[in-house]
Amino acid sequence: MALVVKKFGGTSVGSTERIGAVADKLKASRDAGDDIVVVVSAMSGETNRLTALAEGVHPSPPARELDVLLSTGEQVTIALLTMALEARGCPARCYTGAQVCILTDSAFSKARIQEIDDETIRNDLGLGRVVVVAGFQGVDETGAITTLGRGGSDTTAVALAAALGADECQIYTDVDGVYTTDPRVVPEARRLDRITVDEMLELASLGSKVLQIRAVEFAGKYKVPLRVLSSFEEGPGTLITYEEEGMEEPLISGIAFNRDEAKVAVLGVSDKPGIAGSILGPVADANIEVDMIIQNIGHHGLTDFTFTVHKRDYETTLDLVRRNAERLGAREVAGDDKIVKISLVGVGMRSHAGVASTMFKTLSDEGINIQMISTSEIKISVVVDEKYLELGVRALHKAFELAEAQPVAEEECR
Amino acid sequence: MALVVKKFGGTSVGSTERIGAVADKLKASRDAGDDIVVVVSAMSGETNRLTALAEGVHPSPPARELDVLLSTGEQVTIALLTMALEARGCPARCYTGAQVCILTDSAFSKARIQEIDDETIRNDLGLGRVVVVAGFQGVDETGAITTLGRGGSDTTAVALAAALGADECQIYTDVDGVYTTDPRVVPEARRLDRITVDEMLELASLGSKVLQIRAVEFAGKYKVPLRVLSSFEEGPGTLITYEEEGMEEPLISGIAFNRDEAKVAVLGVSDKPGIAGSILGPVADANIEVDMIIQNIGHHGLTDFTFTVHKRDYETTLDLVRRNAERLGAREVAGDDKIVKISLVGVGMRSHAGVASTMFKTLSDEGINIQMISTSEIKISVVVDEKYLELGVRALHKAFELAEAQPVAEEECR
Repeated sequence: MALVVKKFGGTSVGSTERIGAVADKLKASRDAGDDIVVVVSAMSGETNRLTALAEGVHPSPPARELDVLLSTGEQVTIALLTMALEARGCPARCYTGAQVCILTDSAFSKARIQEIDDETIRNDLGLGRVVVVAGFQGVDETGAITTLGRGGSDTTAVALAAALGADECQIYTDVDGVYTTDPRVVPEARRLDRITVDEMLELASLGSKVLQIRAVEFAGKYKVPLRVLSSFEEGPGTLITYEEEGMEEPLISGIAFNRDEAKVAVLGVSDKPGIAGSILGPVADANIEVDMIIQNIGHHGLTDFTFTVHKRDYETTLDLVRRNAERLGAREVAGDDKIVKISLVGVGMRSHAGVASTMFKTLSDEGINIQMISTSEIKISVVVDEKYLELGVRALHKAFELAEAQPVAEEECR
Repeated sequence: MALVVKKFGGTSVGSTERIGAVADKLKASRDAGDDIVVVVSAMSGETNRLTALAEGVHPSPPARELDVLLSTGEQVTIALLTMALEARGCPARCYTGAQVCILTDSAFSKARIQEIDDETIRNDLGLGRVVVVAGFQGVDETGAITTLGRGGSDTTAVALAAALGADECQIYTDVDGVYTTDPRVVPEARRLDRITVDEMLELASLGSKVLQIRAVEFAGKYKVPLRVLSSFEEGPGTLITYEEEGMEEPLISGIAFNRDEAKVAVLGVSDKPGIAGSILGPVADANIEVDMIIQNIGHHGLTDFTFTVHKRDYETTLDLVRRNAERLGAREVAGDDKIVKISLVGVGMRSHAGVASTMFKTLSDEGINIQMISTSEIKISVVVDEKYLELGVRALHKAFELAEAQPVAEEECR
């Protein structure tokens, strides 16, 4: 008998039929003896419908009232799911964020959870009830309704699991787990049974948007065992774990890629302290986010400085940097938005040499030129011409044998 | 500078355009110097939409969860109206029933208000804000969301006006006031400037469904000046007042009628104690509401017993009474569902003789036979053949000069 927090997103509860299917699934778990807390999102389409109403009365709807409005979406779902459970003879109770005191700060539309009062929920569990809680919403200390921003229901589920000391937090989505890479690019891509939270963070931020980053960070902070699984198919999904648990760590967990970046290079600029700040200062002032930043070792007092931004900011950034180039005495400003970033992620590489060289050799064997390289403890990213995306990802997926059972880093095999 | 509670129903806030129009109206009142609290219902159609969703997951949706679901309707409206006010530069704040602690009992779907905490509202008014409150909903002492039942927004408005000691509670509807009778039957029907709460109760319960009875009772209990007026047209509407105010009382305020009743007569039953209970007991046990009840003086130990029920219960009632008749020794059980009840209402008749005789003579002059008569302090009701409805109401409207300036009872003219 385990205590499990389950979260179902908008697609999973998108119609009364689907809500019925979720209730069937929950009843089966309850009958199997589990204590269950369920977190649900608004029915798919509902948030857009409400946002459109708001835009009908205010050109730029104020965040405080928008939170009052949008939070009704989840309130509708909790009522319907609880009714569906009761229709199946499964005792249940539902609560809004405010009713179970999900206390947040007052940053309307992007509030952060500070505290949860678990007493009501524990009482209901003790009485054998399934407890249904509205995701995405909370209440500030003045009693005002807040929301956690899009995808905040994942965070609600993780926070509840942490507060209740749940055995597992299960996030039901429209995919059946986390894959070694995008199966649309590599048909042999394999579902991972396990992945560490650090790897998940790298994969999520690189584009494999299965879970909200904030929810994963939250889970990591409170060591909540987190599982991603499908609402529509049976299967164990992917368990997100923590290294402290002493599990076997695979060398490489997955390959992420991102087509949304463009690079800007400032060539032949004088190699003196403060040059990076001079180049990136105006970019930051324009609220443009910079991803990779690379500066080569200087020759003859000159250096090359390259960075990447989102494609939508490419033209603006190029303009900004060009206007700045003369003052910096740069020889040339070049740009390219026909690039792709490919990243190898795996906690195993932390204590295992040779991953980078295998990666570079694999790409080179395919005739793929590497334009930029950036590394972190558990990730190696390269920028290549966008036309090599599929070729590069497939070659790396094969070279690291990701379609097979996961290779494990040596020191973990002792 | 007055403190006014205004209530707008579902039709008045049925679209973003109409919400904008309500915001314009509120801003004008605010600019004129009034302190304003607004109570709103769900947008028209929303409650039906939500009810249909509930019926999609449960054959008979449980009341507790139905309240959680339906209360989202008003929450959407308060957010939108507050946004619309802010878009017009009018500072405003919105609150759900729970947020301003509209404490009710736990009778889900038909809860009664017990207490309101007015502190938050007074603070906001002090800061120059329009305060927008969700009608129809409250919270019980365990924190569960409750609703007051259909039309409960009127009650919310009156309760808030009572708690705040408001100068007036204004109910905006799709009619411009209370009329002497239904203008569809009598084109000369006149809007009343004033009506007493007792008369309003008689008129409301008799079919002139401008206001919810419970709201009017509540207003009477706390002596809240209540005004009914139109959302769509300018005009003073009708003020509902209390006799204690020493106002001039008209002899007759209005004529109500009800086509929804049917009569059942038990003829020649023995006139002994307990006979009424023996006849009506089985009817009450079947949860059938009885309206008029008349028992004639007995002759030779026998009496006739007649009562009316709603037309939808007519056949069931007739069956019940017939099955019972033999045991009671009744000579005959007769019924008629082709009847109409016409009622004359006016506090003036309380101290003024001759109203009944004028009424009976007027009907008799038109050749209308009276089947049943029932009187209360401020009302005389007669049952006649339904084909005489229009003729009877028009004749009475003329006889009591209701299209003219209101006649005033003599003793009030001193």
